[in-house]
Amino acid sequence: MIVFTDYLWFSTRQRQEFIRITDQIAGIVARSGITEGTVLVSAMHITAGVYVNDWEDGLIHDFQEWLEKLAPAGLDYQHHRTGEDNADAHLKRTIMGHQVVVPITDGRLDLGPWEQIFYAEFDGRRKKRVVVKAMGI
Amino acid sequence: MIVFTDYLWFSTRQRQEFIRITDQIAGIVARSGITEGTVLVSAMHITAGVYVNDWEDGLIHDFQEWLEKLAPAGLDYQHHRTGEDNADAHLKRTIMGHQVVVPITDGRLDLGPWEQIFYAEFDGRRKKRVVVKAMGI
Amino acid sequence: MIVFTDYLWFSTRQRQEFIRITDQIAGIVARSGITEGTVLVSAMHITAGVYVNDWEDGLIHDFQEWLEKLAPAGLDYQHHRTGEDNADAHLKRTIMGHQVVVPITDGRLDLGPWEQIFYAEFDGRRKKRVVVKAMGI
Repeated sequence: MIVFTDYLWFSTRQRQEFIRITDQIAGIVARSGITEGTVLVSAMHITAGVYVNDWEDGLIHDFQEWLEKLAPAGLDYQHHRTGEDNADAHLKRTIMGHQVVVPITDGRLDLGPWEQIFYAEFDGRRKKRVVVKAMGI
Repeated sequence: MIVFTDYLWFSTRQRQEFIRITDQIAGIVARSGITEGTVLVSAMHITAGVYVNDWEDGLIHDFQEWLEKLAPAGLDYQHHRTGEDNADAHLKRTIMGHQVVVPITDGRLDLGPWEQIFYAEFDGRRKKRVVVKAMGI
Repeated sequence: MIVFTDYLWFSTRQRQEFIRITDQIAGIVARSGITEGTVLVSAMHITAGVYVNDWEDGLIHDFQEWLEKLAPAGLDYQHHRTGEDNADAHLKRTIMGHQVVVPITDGRLDLGPWEQIFYAEFDGRRKKRVVVKAMGI
């Protein structure tokens, strides 16, 4: 059994940014030498998410507008009494999910035709990390 | 270590349909020969989800009505400028989640008394797939 | 390959309660003897969740208030025609997620600086269980 670990670093220019990471994950899986198994991709910061969906700018815009409606910035959140101003980022990342497990089959990510892996940053402009843990044979 | 892969195909009659798949997943786990491990069940299309919850028609109705409220169809989504009309399906599946990992203990799905695995279709009436990847010993 | 299983029991005093379980999960991982792998932490009841986020009382309050807004108690849910009164608990746990997979690196939970694992109870005051399944080498 092989267990292979790597990390991706992000430091976005915008506070909120969605970044496609499918190719980086595929590269890590290739380096792991695993042909059958799974790879966990998980945000290590609690104001960012990892999700699988479409690589289409219009839809990404729709996601962001929708999240703003469901979990608006600027409300009088209790979390802000600690000096923070990012409670909405915690909520938004909860909607999107903070991790995915992607199957590896025949040495490749076993994704459907439109599945792409994204890193979703909701409180960026600083260094943040994603852990990638591949397991299999 | 055993890694065992299978796929389920769906082609729903309705655009939106929730289908219980616990027995199919249990069958795949039985065929895998794994007694201790986990099984990943993951939608391969980005307008469908996989979730665990109650097998009760009233609650399924409540879920669908609730999702329509949180992520309504028919809004002026930017994604629709590509010719698509299913942006709400992408959002709805995000709320429900697109995958679950189910523990396998003593050769069986280690589920609580009311846990059932469901496939949630939000843009059906065409062939779509779920990947099932069991790993363990 | 090691597969190690344990269960956590909860019986909350309040109907809704969020309980930090990071230390219990770390203890189970230590007992498993696994140095590289993952641990699945999954609610076995369908009105409870497991999530990763901040250990800060204000934010926990914000989460609970937000969930009440997105999935209110006391609406005329069809699920209640079965005699139940907890449809909102099913919806709330769906937003928060019912399971997480935590990487194990060098024998320890590979969590970011602020990541904490929580059990989220939405219909408590009775015995409920979480399954913990660690896999690795």
